[in-house]
Amino acid sequence: MTQLIDELFVAAFDNPWLSQRNDQAAIELPEGRTVITTDGFVVSPLFFPGGDIGMLAVNGTVNDVAMAGARPLYLSAAFILEEGFPLGDLARIAESMAAAARTAGVAIVTGDTKVVQRGSGDGVFIATTGVGVAPPGVAPSADSARPGDAVVLSGPIGDHGVAVLAQREALRFETTVTSDTAPLAELVAAMVAAVPDIHVLRDPTRGGLAATLNEIADQSAVGIVVDERAIPVRGEVRAACELLGLDPLNIANEGRLVALVAAADADRLVDAMRGQPHGRDAAVIGHVIADDRRFVQMRTTFGGSRLIDWLAGEPLPRIC
Amino acid sequence: MTQLIDELFVAAFDNPWLSQRNDQAAIELPEGRTVITTDGFVVSPLFFPGGDIGMLAVNGTVNDVAMAGARPLYLSAAFILEEGFPLGDLARIAESMAAAARTAGVAIVTGDTKVVQRGSGDGVFIATTGVGVAPPGVAPSADSARPGDAVVLSGPIGDHGVAVLAQREALRFETTVTSDTAPLAELVAAMVAAVPDIHVLRDPTRGGLAATLNEIADQSAVGIVVDERAIPVRGEVRAACELLGLDPLNIANEGRLVALVAAADADRLVDAMRGQPHGRDAAVIGHVIADDRRFVQMRTTFGGSRLIDWLAGEPLPRIC
Repeated sequence: MTQLIDELFVAAFDNPWLSQRNDQAAIELPEGRTVITTDGFVVSPLFFPGGDIGMLAVNGTVNDVAMAGARPLYLSAAFILEEGFPLGDLARIAESMAAAARTAGVAIVTGDTKVVQRGSGDGVFIATTGVGVAPPGVAPSADSARPGDAVVLSGPIGDHGVAVLAQREALRFETTVTSDTAPLAELVAAMVAAVPDIHVLRDPTRGGLAATLNEIADQSAVGIVVDERAIPVRGEVRAACELLGLDPLNIANEGRLVALVAAADADRLVDAMRGQPHGRDAAVIGHVIADDRRFVQMRTTFGGSRLIDWLAGEPLPRIC
Repeated sequence: MTQLIDELFVAAFDNPWLSQRNDQAAIELPEGRTVITTDGFVVSPLFFPGGDIGMLAVNGTVNDVAMAGARPLYLSAAFILEEGFPLGDLARIAESMAAAARTAGVAIVTGDTKVVQRGSGDGVFIATTGVGVAPPGVAPSADSARPGDAVVLSGPIGDHGVAVLAQREALRFETTVTSDTAPLAELVAAMVAAVPDIHVLRDPTRGGLAATLNEIADQSAVGIVVDERAIPVRGEVRAACELLGLDPLNIANEGRLVALVAAADADRLVDAMRGQPHGRDAAVIGHVIADDRRFVQMRTTFGGSRLIDWLAGEPLPRIC
């Protein structure tokens, strides 16, 4: 069984590293700053509008590498299968991972499969690790925001979380919301080429834009002010959030990013982003201020102001 | 909760990469052949004589890197926790991982934690990925065995599998069998220094020595003949296997390795291994022959000969 599954992955991912069938892969790395990142994926349901756990596992890790300003090159994947998980579903997930890897320009060079008894898992969990290389000197970090920086968002928020939740709860809206899961490596490469000195680069996944902005404010010891009107939210996402009693700011995204750059670099960055498929709706949504309290504030549509808080606890379990 | 757990890991693993709290870590790699490997760990029970899932997750991945002739340098770790898993147990596992990492000389530089509902997981699963660098020219591979090669084993077999099984089945023997889980990086470094041209290097984990020898025979298109009397098995492991109806050759090891080298290099290799704590019992256990059928044969204690076959299916679930 395990051997059958291994063969399925070797065939789907089809590359010389896996074909060698060693327990490890030798990789070539170009000059630059090598980065590594890892993520576990436990999304439920496994298939949702716009994607599946396999696509998510590839894109999510590709994006975490890209958020270092790096080009993702290699992935590893560890699978934990529940006994009895349909092989057809596994093949679909493997094909989806292979396609996502091709799109992102990465190779899945090594992997592992474990099987647990029925009831000790939940279909399939996937842990992916990514390795990539950033150009020398490119080193965005969550502690590098400075007062005066512009806050740039790449596109509308909340699509992924709402797509998964709607599928999970079997909610039907007039229009289906589709996950935004996408590899952001090309977008980041264009951004880094236009503005090498990006201070902070983050993808607002778990906890949404609210968590990401608060993490940046906390780690950089600054305040952030964003403008509600500047933050795009699709009508159907807004409607679904109202129905579910959720705030789009807390909803996970899987194909969006936030960049903080010096104000003087903002226009150049936004122009470079808009030239890319995953950055067409890029816009400045706010700016960084000096604030020892590290508050994230939002100027509301009605001219008021409110604090964007951390959510206590895990807002939406198994969203990725 | 997730945040609390993240803090627990950051405190236990205590290194500058994790303290930076980015979603990825920048790593420095020396000259040489960079290798990457990944493994999922689902061992049940989580704690067993001689180790626990955390120690296993570090040593297992350290060893897969070492089996490329490489020095392991960095690890990543993804945790999938079942809701309600005791924080005290998690802290124990984190401390155990930290200690294993210190012993092996690796840093756990990046990680991720996901929580699934009660009944959708089983306590904790851990996926670790390791990166290391082999000296230029050192490249053992399972397809590189040649007729005439000596087969060297580093120590007694079956300890890990029997330790876990005995704990799981609540079997009590007169003496407790302890897992052999150990980092083999130092041993491999000494081996590579003595004999840079090691043809094949493998740790006989899942499926035991039988599976490993068959994989090597298959991938190198050779036959292998081993001598039963030369393969050390502890008395209590042999007794437990008899009781459980198992063959020590099929039992997983987590601190042993098999090396295939040119016959002329064998004595030098064994001498170098015996100078290391995890190689004290190293011995030549057989040799490689030309055989298109790719058979693994054993000369038995009684002067006969038998085939060592692959086991059909997963012999022992959740052993690592």
